[in-house]
Amino acid sequence: MTKVIVRSFSISLDGYGAGPNQSRENPLGIGGMALHSWFFPTRTFQRMTGGDGGATGVDDNFAAHGFENVGAWILGRNMFGPVRGPWPDENWRGWWGENPPYHVPVIVLTQHARAATRMAGGTTFHFVTDGIHSALEQAMAAANGKDIRIGGGVSTIRQFLRDRLIDDLHLAISPCLLGSGEPFFAGLHLPELGYRLTELVSSPNATHLILTKDV
Amino acid sequence: MTKVIVRSFSISLDGYGAGPNQSRENPLGIGGMALHSWFFPTRTFQRMTGGDGGATGVDDNFAAHGFENVGAWILGRNMFGPVRGPWPDENWRGWWGENPPYHVPVIVLTQHARAATRMAGGTTFHFVTDGIHSALEQAMAAANGKDIRIGGGVSTIRQFLRDRLIDDLHLAISPCLLGSGEPFFAGLHLPELGYRLTELVSSPNATHLILTKDV
Repeated sequence: MTKVIVRSFSISLDGYGAGPNQSRENPLGIGGMALHSWFFPTRTFQRMTGGDGGATGVDDNFAAHGFENVGAWILGRNMFGPVRGPWPDENWRGWWGENPPYHVPVIVLTQHARAATRMAGGTTFHFVTDGIHSALEQAMAAANGKDIRIGGGVSTIRQFLRDRLIDDLHLAISPCLLGSGEPFFAGLHLPELGYRLTELVSSPNATHLILTKDV
Repeated sequence: MTKVIVRSFSISLDGYGAGPNQSRENPLGIGGMALHSWFFPTRTFQRMTGGDGGATGVDDNFAAHGFENVGAWILGRNMFGPVRGPWPDENWRGWWGENPPYHVPVIVLTQHARAATRMAGGTTFHFVTDGIHSALEQAMAAANGKDIRIGGGVSTIRQFLRDRLIDDLHLAISPCLLGSGEPFFAGLHLPELGYRLTELVSSPNATHLILTKDV
């Protein structure tokens, strides 16, 4: 059965899921790269980027698990790129180069229509303009019975949480303070929405949480 | 040299330093007791409450360290008690019974004057009505060269942080979600205020952080 999941989503100690002022130079906002300090050294990430080393252990287990059985992704537009407003052309094809690390259909939430963009390695970006429920339906059709991973950013995940559409989340609290940016928890009453902490594992690099929706 | 410190201040995974609706029945707001789940089992707390057992280890080390070399405390009024507005009488003498765990002068921030209240065991509550800088001066005079511990709550600590009056803080992130309450970090740009993460230690019960002010 298809689950809707969040994996390896990093937040700072002070609760930000991205720094301020996202731009082409700072895809995660200013200072936001520090959020992934636990992820970059893992074998999972190193292999994604063509290396063959990388650390194994708790962090890598979480990182690797995040790519298992994923049949489709959903991304907010800002996670797809820094372009705002109507697409001036189709030149922006994501942050990840010609062979993005998805290898399955990726639904991008946007208010501005655009034709699907087929990339190397099995990734196709589909642009959905009629909201998160529609995006979820299209992801469900595309996922072929596998899971749907909501990649981010903060605002996208929060929208899905508010409608109780996510089955479980893995969050990684990174050892950094951002001071400003996009707050993940503010105004989001997870216990009232039916989410419980079901697992907590700390490594020297991150505190990993699993939040699970009550059935 | 006297330092101004925060120790063993607990926040939830979603960043709340107290639950909502503090009352006589819920000194830490609804659900707020879960914030101290790491602290209650420690030998330090057990001894404070007359027991002679309790756990040693990482959590206890932090708990014990918080009581070392403290010459005076500063508390916000809500941490002193649930009474709001002018004091109807002097019957409320804190949450802690006749022998509170301070054993030194305790400055209570309030907008309503009240005579000092002398308790057993060396604790005297002094009520200061002219703001945090005045409270700090009085604590300084009382501390006799030892440190001044800001006990809380959230709003009090945030006021001292905004004015860069705290030298270092130990925060404990507890494995709980409160969903609402008093947010600790919201709108507080700790890096811009000159605070850096200088230590992070995880136990199964809490993630302990030390934040230190740049000199």
